[in-house]
Amino acid sequence: MALNTLEQLIQSISRLPGLGKKSATRIAYALLAGDQGDAQRLATLIHTLHDTIRRCSVCGSYTETDPCPICTDSGRDRATICVVEQPQDVASLEASHEYHGLYHVLGGVIAPIDGIGPDDLAIRPLVDRAQQDGIDEVIIATNPTVEGDTTALFVARQLEAIGVNVSRLALGLPVGGDLEYADRLTLARSFRGRTPLA
Amino acid sequence: MALNTLEQLIQSISRLPGLGKKSATRIAYALLAGDQGDAQRLATLIHTLHDTIRRCSVCGSYTETDPCPICTDSGRDRATICVVEQPQDVASLEASHEYHGLYHVLGGVIAPIDGIGPDDLAIRPLVDRAQQDGIDEVIIATNPTVEGDTTALFVARQLEAIGVNVSRLALGLPVGGDLEYADRLTLARSFRGRTPLA
Repeated sequence: MALNTLEQLIQSISRLPGLGKKSATRIAYALLAGDQGDAQRLATLIHTLHDTIRRCSVCGSYTETDPCPICTDSGRDRATICVVEQPQDVASLEASHEYHGLYHVLGGVIAPIDGIGPDDLAIRPLVDRAQQDGIDEVIIATNPTVEGDTTALFVARQLEAIGVNVSRLALGLPVGGDLEYADRLTLARSFRGRTPLA
Repeated sequence: MALNTLEQLIQSISRLPGLGKKSATRIAYALLAGDQGDAQRLATLIHTLHDTIRRCSVCGSYTETDPCPICTDSGRDRATICVVEQPQDVASLEASHEYHGLYHVLGGVIAPIDGIGPDDLAIRPLVDRAQQDGIDEVIIATNPTVEGDTTALFVARQLEAIGVNVSRLALGLPVGGDLEYADRLTLARSFRGRTPLA
């Protein structure tokens, strides 16, 4: 049976992450009941997305200009690179306003089960950058998962071989968290990484 | 500061119902990382939505043809009308495959606090339809809320005045529900509406 427009839209929306059939239906009806101009503005943004936004040829994060504003910003610390898995991680870290160096997006993690090896990630370009641009420190910010940890170790070995200092984001209790709800591994890490009180 | 395309998209998506900044960000990045063709198909569906889908001039539900397929279906029971608040309620009720009559969308409920009175809803057209089309029964399927109940009562009075039988969807325990988690009012209603076991 041919799907009508509304069913097609609901199906298309429900393929987006975090949305099931119910929420997709709710969104489709809201678009329909809402202002036509608003819907069309959203449509135009989605339609032109891939043409407007590309990957930065230096760091691999999303950008409208190549190289990206971070890579060309002379006000940033150009001797430090923070290594992340995905382009969206750059935005999360930038929101902390704590880091002022450069970034490097690996494009994933080493995951042999999914057939992703070191050569499928931007590890070689990272080592080249570190070597050519005189990088002092590389901070690895892969996710604290088995794959993220494995990837961090692998990347660290490559960088230490060329004499670059490598560090990893601290693991411990999240700010505002509750000991009662913290998992065993996080608690163990927060003991091991305890810091002296000033 | 001028927002870049990605920020505009995230802002636009986060205005949709049920989506906050975090889920909007996740969706925007998924659109970006996904297939360009998929994104553009979604964009086209959203862009043409208001031009493709209109309200049925008979029942008020959303349709691509006017009158809608339900209103023109000669196989349906044309002596029964089910009255709902919103166009999306028609799709929910159709999914039950239990009802084979016609529909009528009120377009909301009587809510004096929000300044919505009976004249703001399609109540007069419903009474006209019931009178002109020789309707036997009207089933009121407004939501079981204070406003829904008030509206149901108001509509019922208008229809009883012209000799139409009026009923209301049964209230009681949801199928698969648990007595332990049912609220007091629902339990009270399920006692009052108890049915004899065959």
